[in-house]
Amino acid sequence: MLPKQDEENMKISRPTLLIDKQRALRNIRKMAGKAARSGVIFRPHFKTHQSARIGMWSKKEGINKITVSSIEMARFFADHGWDDITVAFPVNILEIKNINKLIRQVTLQLLVESEETIKFLGKNIISPVGIWIKVDVGYHRTGILWDRQDDILRLIQLINRHDFLNFSGLLTHAGHAYHVQGIPRLRLVYEDSLDKLFKIKKILMSAGVQEVKLSYGDTPTCSIIDNFSGLDEIRPGNFIFYDAMQLLIGSCCEDDIALALACPVVAKHVHRNELIIHGGAVHLSKESVPDQNRQNIYGYATSWNGHHWGPVSRDNYVSSLSQEHGIIRAHSTFFKQIKTGDILTVIPVHSCLCMNLMRRFRVI
Amino acid sequence: MLPKQDEENMKISRPTLLIDKQRALRNIRKMAGKAARSGVIFRPHFKTHQSARIGMWSKKEGINKITVSSIEMARFFADHGWDDITVAFPVNILEIKNINKLIRQVTLQLLVESEETIKFLGKNIISPVGIWIKVDVGYHRTGILWDRQDDILRLIQLINRHDFLNFSGLLTHAGHAYHVQGIPRLRLVYEDSLDKLFKIKKILMSAGVQEVKLSYGDTPTCSIIDNFSGLDEIRPGNFIFYDAMQLLIGSCCEDDIALALACPVVAKHVHRNELIIHGGAVHLSKESVPDQNRQNIYGYATSWNGHHWGPVSRDNYVSSLSQEHGIIRAHSTFFKQIKTGDILTVIPVHSCLCMNLMRRFRVI
Repeated sequence: MLPKQDEENMKISRPTLLIDKQRALRNIRKMAGKAARSGVIFRPHFKTHQSARIGMWSKKEGINKITVSSIEMARFFADHGWDDITVAFPVNILEIKNINKLIRQVTLQLLVESEETIKFLGKNIISPVGIWIKVDVGYHRTGILWDRQDDILRLIQLINRHDFLNFSGLLTHAGHAYHVQGIPRLRLVYEDSLDKLFKIKKILMSAGVQEVKLSYGDTPTCSIIDNFSGLDEIRPGNFIFYDAMQLLIGSCCEDDIALALACPVVAKHVHRNELIIHGGAVHLSKESVPDQNRQNIYGYATSWNGHHWGPVSRDNYVSSLSQEHGIIRAHSTFFKQIKTGDILTVIPVHSCLCMNLMRRFRVI
Repeated sequence: MLPKQDEENMKISRPTLLIDKQRALRNIRKMAGKAARSGVIFRPHFKTHQSARIGMWSKKEGINKITVSSIEMARFFADHGWDDITVAFPVNILEIKNINKLIRQVTLQLLVESEETIKFLGKNIISPVGIWIKVDVGYHRTGILWDRQDDILRLIQLINRHDFLNFSGLLTHAGHAYHVQGIPRLRLVYEDSLDKLFKIKKILMSAGVQEVKLSYGDTPTCSIIDNFSGLDEIRPGNFIFYDAMQLLIGSCCEDDIALALACPVVAKHVHRNELIIHGGAVHLSKESVPDQNRQNIYGYATSWNGHHWGPVSRDNYVSSLSQEHGIIRAHSTFFKQIKTGDILTVIPVHSCLCMNLMRRFRVI
């Protein structure tokens, strides 16, 4: 397969991932500060960057607990010195061998949502492990629906029957926050999610469960909420970089965005105000988002001054992506300034997927 | 970044790319046979697999000319012994240093569509190189519109003014074939594209251009056409694996599909006939396609018998993807047969993007 060679020098000549470290640090500090002031654990989701080096930026800010979304990712960060890891993905029982290897090395917490998985873990796990129950507060991807408290209680009782399984609490991801826009609506999603979590907690405790911790994650709501009291832990991930999707949701400002893809302009089509960049689905991913009054877009195109990307304008956007090509539709003023051989920077729709594809990056 | 570790053994325990080598070989032989019988060069696009090992499958079938979509990919295959390479992507002038390195090593052909690029190459290239002009026969991604024959002629004259630039001919990609379905419509796209190419060729030759070769590519039409006479070269890529998109277009049969992703089932939601797999956007890509009467789908889910994937049913499909999660909506019969801890196989929407993400694969 293609090796991802290092750039020969600082000059950008092909699709290059740029990370503004100062902004990323500011984003980390801001979220960590809010968590600390609220008295909740901050356990950022490292699936966003999957990078040992960027992980160190968090470590230097005092973060020592992390979230990941696969056993493979947990293994990777364990090998890079992280020793308190939650895998916020329903346990894949086929990976029991790797799970048991990890347990020897780190404080591991796993996520379940079914009796079968709990029974399997109970039989096959070789050391104590924390077990979160995934609760669905409205996203409807995974988890037990929040109003099925009897089912949740049954799972807790089942967990407690196994010596090596320790019930950690209820974990949720309010992914439906990605379907709304604007701070008032994000706040509603957050308040509704917490309301549901508090109700379940109350019912469980009155049924005799002694401790029910609450772990909550998603960048959109965690970004606009200042005080997380009532929760025990937050797990946002994307907040370290943000992206075009978060900008449209309203969970970040343009100045919070810490990641962009620099792309060479390879063609200019004057008859349709379109620029062709080397920068396609293998760099940006095919994640798209509907922009105001428009079809789906795949990112915003901004200028590049040799040091940083320029301001976002909704008139300059990636309208289409093939494997290696990107088509930029641009306002005529912007279009006229750009020529073949220039560099444009694209704010991707989803920084996690862009980072996963690019792997290497350059700090600016 | 995450290393992609080898599977410990043959047992599938996490998302694993499967390739049916016999089908891939059959696909290569079929396309190579049609090209040979038509008397045209077969120059398959290696962006589909980007793999030295799979490249060898073509080499053993007598193929020695290839297409790629970046200088980096050309470099990779040059390092693996390929010495006749066309980069079917508009020249990125910022990579001139790497282009000049490649020219010393392989027979290189490049693609242009503007005067600026030709002038730049004329000044900066250090050895003879073949130059194709990209012509747009209806896809409207890149290239000079087919009816601007004066512009095309001017570019040819400009190419001929530079000693190291040799005009190779007209190259097109009928990507709009991806927007139609069924053999009769695909045939119309092909015939219309060739009609346009033949018209330009005739005009150019009557204007004194001595030789105008025609290079044509895209899997949908090349798959349903038997005789390519009139062309000089074909460059399909995806045909080696095919995928759900090609199946919906009607350019392949189910038995031609040579690639699938095996995914562990991690949760089962009986109230909505949904299965959750470990297999998300980082494995399958977010490429989607509208299925009959439905919103976009991200692949078809089929069974796994330990040796091969099972039959495709349009009732069992990937309805949504997050970074690591896939949601499968399934017919109740299929749904009942599957339990947590089973393996499902997904026929991806776009095998090129899936292969690019997975990189490692297992031959079945």
